Amino acid sequence: MESIKIGLLGLGVVGSGVWKVIKENSFELTECCGKKIEISKILVKSINKNRNVDVPKEILTLDFNDILADEDIDIIVEVMGGIHPPKEYILKAIEKSKHIVTANKQLLATCGNDIFSAARDNNVKVFYEASVAGGIPIINAIRESLTSNKIEEIIGIVNGTTNYILSKMTDENSNFEEALQEAKNKGYAEAVPTSDIEGYDAAYKLAILSSPAFKTSVNIESISREGITKITRDDIQFARNLGYTIKLLAIAIHKNQSLELRVHPAMIPNSNPLAHITDCYNGIIIKGNAAGNLMFQGKGAGELPTASAIVADIISIISNKKDSAVNYKDKNSRILSPDEIHGDYYVRLKIKNNSDALFNITDILSMKNIKMSSITENKINEDEAALLFTISDIGFLSLSFILNELKSLPQVLEIENIIKIEDYAA
Amino acid sequence: MESIKIGLLGLGVVGSGVWKVIKENSFELTECCGKKIEISKILVKSINKNRNVDVPKEILTLDFNDILADEDIDIIVEVMGGIHPPKEYILKAIEKSKHIVTANKQLLATCGNDIFSAARDNNVKVFYEASVAGGIPIINAIRESLTSNKIEEIIGIVNGTTNYILSKMTDENSNFEEALQEAKNKGYAEAVPTSDIEGYDAAYKLAILSSPAFKTSVNIESISREGITKITRDDIQFARNLGYTIKLLAIAIHKNQSLELRVHPAMIPNSNPLAHITDCYNGIIIKGNAAGNLMFQGKGAGELPTASAIVADIISIISNKKDSAVNYKDKNSRILSPDEIHGDYYVRLKIKNNSDALFNITDILSMKNIKMSSITENKINEDEAALLFTISDIGFLSLSFILNELKSLPQVLEIENIIKIEDYAA
Repeated sequence: MESIKIGLLGLGVVGSGVWKVIKENSFELTECCGKKIEISKILVKSINKNRNVDVPKEILTLDFNDILADEDIDIIVEVMGGIHPPKEYILKAIEKSKHIVTANKQLLATCGNDIFSAARDNNVKVFYEASVAGGIPIINAIRESLTSNKIEEIIGIVNGTTNYILSKMTDENSNFEEALQEAKNKGYAEAVPTSDIEGYDAAYKLAILSSPAFKTSVNIESISREGITKITRDDIQFARNLGYTIKLLAIAIHKNQSLELRVHPAMIPNSNPLAHITDCYNGIIIKGNAAGNLMFQGKGAGELPTASAIVADIISIISNKKDSAVNYKDKNSRILSPDEIHGDYYVRLKIKNNSDALFNITDILSMKNIKMSSITENKINEDEAALLFTISDIGFLSLSFILNELKSLPQVLEIENIIKIEDYAA
Repeated sequence: MESIKIGLLGLGVVGSGVWKVIKENSFELTECCGKKIEISKILVKSINKNRNVDVPKEILTLDFNDILADEDIDIIVEVMGGIHPPKEYILKAIEKSKHIVTANKQLLATCGNDIFSAARDNNVKVFYEASVAGGIPIINAIRESLTSNKIEEIIGIVNGTTNYILSKMTDENSNFEEALQEAKNKGYAEAVPTSDIEGYDAAYKLAILSSPAFKTSVNIESISREGITKITRDDIQFARNLGYTIKLLAIAIHKNQSLELRVHPAMIPNSNPLAHITDCYNGIIIKGNAAGNLMFQGKGAGELPTASAIVADIISIISNKKDSAVNYKDKNSRILSPDEIHGDYYVRLKIKNNSDALFNITDILSMKNIKMSSITENKINEDEAALLFTISDIGFLSLSFILNELKSLPQVLEIENIIKIEDYAA
């Protein structure tokens, strides 16, 4: 029986998962492809490192050129992460007419067009289902099942680490630092967790999903981004009292030729199914003009779920399926600036305790015809208090001006947090 | 520009939806396929009927042979429903080398193999995403994205009508008849609702999903099936008190070379995401040995969602994608008989009011070392009471024997309902 030879770049968590899935499901894979899938060389940083996977040492190599030069290798699976050297390796492999499967969201979100161009020029396929939401087949859904639709919205929880942290804060009343530490202990958060907690990871994924969904090239810089580090127990408690849950959302909305792209914590009503995506799970709602709201949920990361998507991509290449690597040109859909985004907001201010702050604030707002709701004052200490409230139907730019004005009040010590309320029940 | 001509069989709710989606999204469809999709003939029962869709009368026909003889028609879309004549039409179209898209679950579940054989013989594609769960791309997920997995379980709410009725009973304390009437008023239930409320529709869908998932030919007769007509307010209330929700589930479990296939109402914990699928929505959990639990949810029926899946299938044919129509041979996975199914059960008996029924029942059960829990007695009238309780970890066959024994007690008037408790939180 013919076998398809794979060169695997990286043997960390995901690389080991790919090895295991190909081994464990080999009977089914062979049945499905009519060919044997074989990982014939693996690029690693150390040959002799102890690994929790039973890979023969003779197929490990420290030199990418060993893999590149191997004419028998048809498909390169890149699971190293980061931009350099994966970008160079992938481009070289494409030149040698090797097909690519990658889980590298950072690379795709920032250099996808270069890779897709090279792939077109060399008649090579690039598949990347694993780059977003692990084992959830979301890119396939957008690229195939929803081609019959105009996609109007994508709203998703696409970062498992921050969802774990927020779930912990919500369910166990932990503060942010405790929950982050717990996420690190469990292996969900990295030692330097910036990419997750500051929303970069979610923004990469939103860019990758938005390109095929809206058939446009999304520049990662055009996604407004805010992480979860400012969220406190107060915010979570305030949300709970109103029947909301705080989630880090990646949102793309296409309306009137404009595209709204943002990643930020949001308060969503508990009737929204995303409110029930807890722990390190991912959930993504896609709204099509025919299909309506579809939601996909599952494990968004981890050894086997990510490997599941990678091996499915390998099968797609073997079955000669059309790939997802398209160089979308910038359409004339205008990207909305965050200032143009209109909605309801939650605001938390630090004010002087026992002061007439509230009186002065309501005075300023009522002169502008702006209504505060759900006003809550929590004493922090003898000198300071937190003032929490919501404001309805206001543009972000106006809100910024008003908050600046409030900040100039002597009783207002700090504007501590602003969270958008996404009040649709999907 | 080349155009692909479609012959549409049926112009009811779904047929109209297909017309609308092709019209409304024509720009996107042409962009995606590089060809224009055109419905060139439509088989109807009456030319002059008033329709809520703007179709030119000259393309309507009362005679299937008009469509069959049209050499320009490449693809037949069948949305008539029922087995005859759709089966004959489809087989004739296949003989003429026309590709098939169908939403006909009854036909596929009962005669799928005949159709798939004919399609193989004539080198014709058959796509049927719309036959299960409307716009949710569940067949595509099984046939492509999850090919890297051994699929272990499918557990789904696949019938929107019964889910609407149960949601109504749960949320508004309606009884079954009231909720059914409401479903009829809303157009969710047909005048003769047997197929939905007795679980036939769900069983068809389970058969269609199970074949590609477990690569075996599933005979519809091998699915044990029970509908929702016996569910009462008492059952719903009892479930609520224990933190459960009652849903009509379609379940396929593959374990130790055996396949368990069943459709029945079940009590699931509120922590199971399926408990939150309400109204006429569908939700399906698929458990893969690599991907873990994936859940898909969305509108499982209706004009546009179903049309969304049909038009996506048309695009798949135009893109020359491998189809899903496979004649699976019966593998040696044994189909479990319902008697072999083990688990926890809820039981509702009608007993004589103010009798020593409970004493005698507990006596019989304790002699067999069977523990009753959550025992509840509700007086019905002076003479009768309902006795509700759960039993843990028992085979269905043993349960049947025991219930027979209980029935012979003079104080037990009737065994009114038995509901399986599916106590995993997915």
